[in-house]
Amino acid sequence: MGTVLKRNGSLLYLRIAQTIEQQIAIEVRQVGDKLPSIRTLCREYGVSPSTALQAYHHLESKALISARPQSGYYVCQPQRQRHSIHRTSAPDLAKPAEDINALVTKVYSNLEKNSKQIPFSLGLPALELLPVAKLNKGLIQAMRELDGGGIELESPLGNERLRKQIARWSFPMEAQIDHRNIITTAGCLSAISHCLMALTQAGDTIAMESPISFGMLQVAQNLRLKVLELPTNPLTGIELDAVKKALSQKKIRLCLFIPNFSNPLGTCMPDENKKALVELLEKYNIPLIENDLNGDVYFGTHRPKSCKTYDESGLVLWCGSVSKSLAPGYRVGWVEPGKFGEKVQQVKMYHSISSTTITQEVIASFLENSRYETHLRKLRHTLYTNYLQYIRTINGWFPEDTRVSQPKGGFVLWVELNKKINTVELYENAIRQKISIAPGKIFTLTNQFNNCMRLNYGLVWNEKTETGLRVLGKLIKTML
Amino acid sequence: MGTVLKRNGSLLYLRIAQTIEQQIAIEVRQVGDKLPSIRTLCREYGVSPSTALQAYHHLESKALISARPQSGYYVCQPQRQRHSIHRTSAPDLAKPAEDINALVTKVYSNLEKNSKQIPFSLGLPALELLPVAKLNKGLIQAMRELDGGGIELESPLGNERLRKQIARWSFPMEAQIDHRNIITTAGCLSAISHCLMALTQAGDTIAMESPISFGMLQVAQNLRLKVLELPTNPLTGIELDAVKKALSQKKIRLCLFIPNFSNPLGTCMPDENKKALVELLEKYNIPLIENDLNGDVYFGTHRPKSCKTYDESGLVLWCGSVSKSLAPGYRVGWVEPGKFGEKVQQVKMYHSISSTTITQEVIASFLENSRYETHLRKLRHTLYTNYLQYIRTINGWFPEDTRVSQPKGGFVLWVELNKKINTVELYENAIRQKISIAPGKIFTLTNQFNNCMRLNYGLVWNEKTETGLRVLGKLIKTML
Repeated sequence: MGTVLKRNGSLLYLRIAQTIEQQIAIEVRQVGDKLPSIRTLCREYGVSPSTALQAYHHLESKALISARPQSGYYVCQPQRQRHSIHRTSAPDLAKPAEDINALVTKVYSNLEKNSKQIPFSLGLPALELLPVAKLNKGLIQAMRELDGGGIELESPLGNERLRKQIARWSFPMEAQIDHRNIITTAGCLSAISHCLMALTQAGDTIAMESPISFGMLQVAQNLRLKVLELPTNPLTGIELDAVKKALSQKKIRLCLFIPNFSNPLGTCMPDENKKALVELLEKYNIPLIENDLNGDVYFGTHRPKSCKTYDESGLVLWCGSVSKSLAPGYRVGWVEPGKFGEKVQQVKMYHSISSTTITQEVIASFLENSRYETHLRKLRHTLYTNYLQYIRTINGWFPEDTRVSQPKGGFVLWVELNKKINTVELYENAIRQKISIAPGKIFTLTNQFNNCMRLNYGLVWNEKTETGLRVLGKLIKTML
Repeated sequence: MGTVLKRNGSLLYLRIAQTIEQQIAIEVRQVGDKLPSIRTLCREYGVSPSTALQAYHHLESKALISARPQSGYYVCQPQRQRHSIHRTSAPDLAKPAEDINALVTKVYSNLEKNSKQIPFSLGLPALELLPVAKLNKGLIQAMRELDGGGIELESPLGNERLRKQIARWSFPMEAQIDHRNIITTAGCLSAISHCLMALTQAGDTIAMESPISFGMLQVAQNLRLKVLELPTNPLTGIELDAVKKALSQKKIRLCLFIPNFSNPLGTCMPDENKKALVELLEKYNIPLIENDLNGDVYFGTHRPKSCKTYDESGLVLWCGSVSKSLAPGYRVGWVEPGKFGEKVQQVKMYHSISSTTITQEVIASFLENSRYETHLRKLRHTLYTNYLQYIRTINGWFPEDTRVSQPKGGFVLWVELNKKINTVELYENAIRQKISIAPGKIFTLTNQFNNCMRLNYGLVWNEKTETGLRVLGKLIKTML
């Protein structure tokens, strides 16, 4: 076969690439399919490993396939390219803040009661994707190692072993994080709540990206804060010009952003934007609460940096947890609060004394050896291939004008439907079919995104999930 | 011997009682000593069990001895009666609120670092008094029984089994508590914090008893609330007249009291006062956050009632936990928030989603069978006999003019020294001898109680503890 290719005068690697490209075009190979290994390619085409690699690199450069560390290459985009969301959001701040609580409660209390639903609205990966057996083993070990089996009160800063591991884990993002400045909390939301309580007063205005996870909006509203929603680009994140304008024109107490794999857009803010953002905040002396709880769940080859990486003046309060990647029910999170350490620690101490002792110890030991990295590798791979399966199914079953986000990590997909579709109505129709979605309306206080929804691809990909997506597509078509 | 007694013409039981009374007077029998069993008494004096019992009842009525359920009779007061604290506190509200945080931090961060200290300042019973092995067993069982070993997120209201058990446990206090209205929290302080956040705004005034646990003062100050400290009687608790006056003259947002075994006084408010207090609050429509975390640790024969018992209009937010009686590091507490359920649940959800799953399950199963009651019986007995040992040692080694509280439960003793003694200075002197006390100054914001201190008798009573108390007594004498 190698000689045939040579005879046509084309470069070998290009011919291989073109063949695969055509297979993708006619959907012989579909989104989510794994491509042959380099070794198989060499054998099939009688070429050298470097030629085979070159072919895949070429397809990668055209964004048709993507490499997954320690796994191989996957088809990631259909030849018939779907429209992706590219528009920057435009929150209308003239509108009065909407009350989203009733809708959120409806969606999530319904979800809780009915385990037979397909939980596309879920804000967490499914239990099946988490290392239950290994955590159980860790729990027994921690119980034996701790004095009193975890019955004793943890120190106000939190478990020291855990704090050291969090500092170690932060090395790849090249931030200066000293474990002595880390405070553990009962999950990432608690960390954010502590930061807000330490730095704001009722009536203050804080800036967030738009759309944003309703949890961030609800904690702010509960503290009687005003939320300024800023325009956000689905590929590059928060618009820096908008931040600049807001800081110069309005009294902003602080910013609360999710720079890595934002929720619901899945955006990863480019490093240069993170740097520029931190410089801007330094200029105006405005703190940033950085919600980085998805930072470890990336699709690329390495963990993205954080805004904390560029923080030289201690204005960034870096918050994280293992609630989305390892053990939601353990309630283990943390914050490195920059120069606001004392204030944040006081909030933790005065409102809760400390957080649960034993679960902190289990997570510390999980991070200490390679168990966490092994789990994350598997989780990232599952999430990425699930994402591709979702795209493939949406391409096949949703209306032509459907637009989807291009998450770079995390576990949620943002879907923009035809303007005629109201996703609160869609929610009602879908729930009758035992399918739960998160309507776009709950990701803002400015009554937008009524034709959008968030879907969780952190579920087990199987026939039920696939059928659920197909039914959703059909429902949307019926509504048009 | 019985004939000798008869011959003198006195009633048999009285003669026995007088003999024992004399033994106590000349300190042949000391405070904390166990008295002979009824059977032994019958044998020694050749009397019937009813006569022996009559003798002990007579001594009980003179408050010289006290019965401990399933244990026997103990000497509880020396014949040479010590002065007990009887004066009602008189907070001076003209003074500006003091900052107690620095002193609290000093006392407790010192304590944490140095495990060789005798921790009289500790706000918890010592680990040795808690059922570590049984809880460990419960942890493994809970891990096996829960889907996902406790990795899944708990529902916003909290573990249902636990809520049912809390409702069952509240039966003896005769309150109408439905498990569907209970919200679990990460400890009692979290419950109180949630209630305060749900019902107050910065600048509001709330009423508390005085002296009061510094934790209550700190959470209020952190929320920028003003604290009105009300006069409190060491035997009957908060002065109802003072509450009435405050409610009628001042704008009070709510009250935060510890009616059962208050901290630091150990007072148990009489039932009729609880009833009257609730009626008064109903008249003015003022909510009461009732901190009842010590209610199960009583010295008497039964659990005292709570203000919740008398609550007909849903104004009482009843808060409790197992942090002081079972497992501090588990962070398991709860609140039955009366008619403020929705608001309190929102605070919990919006600031923390939920609390740790597995520790809730362990406590649920501990409460479900008789393990908790068995443990509490033992703990109550240890605490009571420890308390008597403390009294005996203080009587022997502290200056004559020392006054002590008469706690009816809980694990702390309030000690009032000569006015010349400043307990912050005493703290400094004692800490050099590796003895840590809690100075009275941290139990108020009105700069009072400078000659008082709180001592924890929830430690293991041994030579080290006894020596610690003796050294403390000597230090005080030196300072006079």
